[in-house]
Amino acid sequence: SAVHNLSNITDLSPLPDHILIELFLRTLRAGKLTERVLKLFIATGKDEVFSLIQALNIQVTVTPVLPTRALRPDLTSFMNEWRTIFSRFHLIIVKDPDLKEELKIPEGFNLDVYKKPDIDRVVGTSTSTIFSGYSCRYFGYLVSRKKYIISVDDDCYPAKDNKGILVDAVAQHITNLTTPATPFFFNTLYDPFTEGADFVRGYPFSLRSGVQCALSCGLWLNLADYDAPTQALKPEERNSRYVDAVLTVPARTLMPISGINIAFNREVIGPALLPSLRLGGEGKFRWETMEDIWSGMCVKVVCDHLGHGVKTGMPYVWRNDRGDAIASLRKEWEGVKLMEEVVPFFQSVRLSREAKTTEDCVAEVANVVKEQLGSKDPMFARAAKAMVDWVKLWKSVGSSTSSPGA
Amino acid sequence: SAVHNLSNITDLSPLPDHILIELFLRTLRAGKLTERVLKLFIATGKDEVFSLIQALNIQVTVTPVLPTRALRPDLTSFMNEWRTIFSRFHLIIVKDPDLKEELKIPEGFNLDVYKKPDIDRVVGTSTSTIFSGYSCRYFGYLVSRKKYIISVDDDCYPAKDNKGILVDAVAQHITNLTTPATPFFFNTLYDPFTEGADFVRGYPFSLRSGVQCALSCGLWLNLADYDAPTQALKPEERNSRYVDAVLTVPARTLMPISGINIAFNREVIGPALLPSLRLGGEGKFRWETMEDIWSGMCVKVVCDHLGHGVKTGMPYVWRNDRGDAIASLRKEWEGVKLMEEVVPFFQSVRLSREAKTTEDCVAEVANVVKEQLGSKDPMFARAAKAMVDWVKLWKSVGSSTSSPGA
Repeated sequence: SAVHNLSNITDLSPLPDHILIELFLRTLRAGKLTERVLKLFIATGKDEVFSLIQALNIQVTVTPVLPTRALRPDLTSFMNEWRTIFSRFHLIIVKDPDLKEELKIPEGFNLDVYKKPDIDRVVGTSTSTIFSGYSCRYFGYLVSRKKYIISVDDDCYPAKDNKGILVDAVAQHITNLTTPATPFFFNTLYDPFTEGADFVRGYPFSLRSGVQCALSCGLWLNLADYDAPTQALKPEERNSRYVDAVLTVPARTLMPISGINIAFNREVIGPALLPSLRLGGEGKFRWETMEDIWSGMCVKVVCDHLGHGVKTGMPYVWRNDRGDAIASLRKEWEGVKLMEEVVPFFQSVRLSREAKTTEDCVAEVANVVKEQLGSKDPMFARAAKAMVDWVKLWKSVGSSTSSPGA
Repeated sequence: SAVHNLSNITDLSPLPDHILIELFLRTLRAGKLTERVLKLFIATGKDEVFSLIQALNIQVTVTPVLPTRALRPDLTSFMNEWRTIFSRFHLIIVKDPDLKEELKIPEGFNLDVYKKPDIDRVVGTSTSTIFSGYSCRYFGYLVSRKKYIISVDDDCYPAKDNKGILVDAVAQHITNLTTPATPFFFNTLYDPFTEGADFVRGYPFSLRSGVQCALSCGLWLNLADYDAPTQALKPEERNSRYVDAVLTVPARTLMPISGINIAFNREVIGPALLPSLRLGGEGKFRWETMEDIWSGMCVKVVCDHLGHGVKTGMPYVWRNDRGDAIASLRKEWEGVKLMEEVVPFFQSVRLSREAKTTEDCVAEVANVVKEQLGSKDPMFARAAKAMVDWVKLWKSVGSSTSSPGA
């Protein structure tokens, strides 16, 4: 009877493994393995389930996108550390077009590598420059046809939780994206859809069904995503605090969204994750870039307008040291000053009722950027144009339509 | 030289105990033990510091207020569990005026107990009814003259953290209240003023000094603060997730503030914590009341208007079972329905520029309650009147002026 009641069940993880597997197989035999039900099983994070999905060659709707940058052509240790998690999925690896050396990738993965000639072929040589450096990730977002995309930087390894257990970042991101978000009222016990959590007294019942979660922002242990001044001031500072929580960022609250460890529903919000703001002195270290922060402001404004949710918190990844913060300080200063303009701007942006799709919303934001910021700095005018171009590119490459396979 | 540089130091807790004590004594001798510096020492949470403060009879600016309710006259085990923490402070115990039996309180505490005759004497017999049941706590808020008030319900014991160490709820609340809050932009690594945490890349530097924190909302392990329907549906549900985080609730985001475990800056926001909304069928179990949720909406709106911060998260308390949720369901229904009106109302309230003090703000909120909700249910009209009366009472009892001693 559990097979027939699966539509009412929101969490299978309390089930013992053997019952879970039995239920999975019976569901499959009964022809009830819909995408929603498959997600329920994936959300358990159980290895047995993943092995079965793999063995049965069931289409999993996730693409991890792995951007690589000019500083790290050898992906051997990176891929090997992630092997148990990533080998279950089809991967997209995008090679930074500025990177000259060949990538070294170990055997045993199902993946596509996109290099400069591939990028040129898809978008044309004049456009391919937008994918240089950290922005190479966006090419993966453009060519994936999966529903969920997970993106992890190549200087991050799987983290361990408070109990020393390896964190399956993909499973946690998928759980975040497939359970509702609650942006309209804050729940003091964090994500009420986490196992063992709930809505506290006083939470309106009409808001408890929540809304669709479009974006899941993960965090970092060890080297956190600080800016160069913070790193330079506190060179010994490392993040060792594993906070066992996920929460919805409230509507109309902005935040610095990092691209280092994120996941999103491509069909819902894909075109709002875009390469558009490029600093004049942009470098090859994370703290020398702002493209993800700008894109994050854009995606949050679009989610707020369309009534989608954004979650932050788990999963963590373990991020390794790299670079010399003090040497980066000069370049970073531009990005630091920038936020003093960018934050009040995005806090004030309100989209029109006519903006009903993510593409509409991005185009509207681009217009306001051009009008209100364009004259302050040519960098903003270029960003506005890049946003408009991105929406066109998204449509022309066919990312707007969802089709199976990648 | 550390004595002279204390004004630049924000955290003394990394110091070894013997250096901390030496520094404390030298600071005292140098005549530099200002209130701010004293708070720095208190925030270390070190027993040696508290012993010294007690031994030297230094005025500590904290009052724990311990409301007692009709169901629990014997405070012996409650007080003994909290002894190491509460014995350092002057306590206010307010006896629910409806409670007939004598309170049993163990020896060894510095406290004042306020009973019905005391309440009648201070506020008059016609007013004293507002302090019945859970609302007895507000009498303690009214008569305290300390800067910080901490209120813990008498069914809560000290919790243990993830490492099994007893949580000093008072020290954590004081840390929350004496470090800035950041309500205007969300920091993904939670409270940046927590030890080892910081602002992440993209956080505007102009917002990093933060604002004064006026309210600290703690959480609950074991029996969380759920409503009766949730408890009745999931009688076995217990909160075992200790989330090692404090965060600022963003400006303009409302939340259900529970009165079970909170602390606030009385001088800044005192008059906004008030007994005003009383359900028709209000009972003697927490889930049969809404006074704290209503007061919490009011205090959050006032903090947002005045630019103060509200934090939530740690400290946890261990909350024990009591009551029969199913029996309460009938009474609770009124409170559950209520939030469907109350939340959109408070989300829409905007105060005028003329409202410059907490008293002004409460009076304005009361006016809007009367205008917009008064006709919908006489309960709201009564709440509006009670809010206006409270501000008058707060002034007449002299709570508005800060004076040493209690």
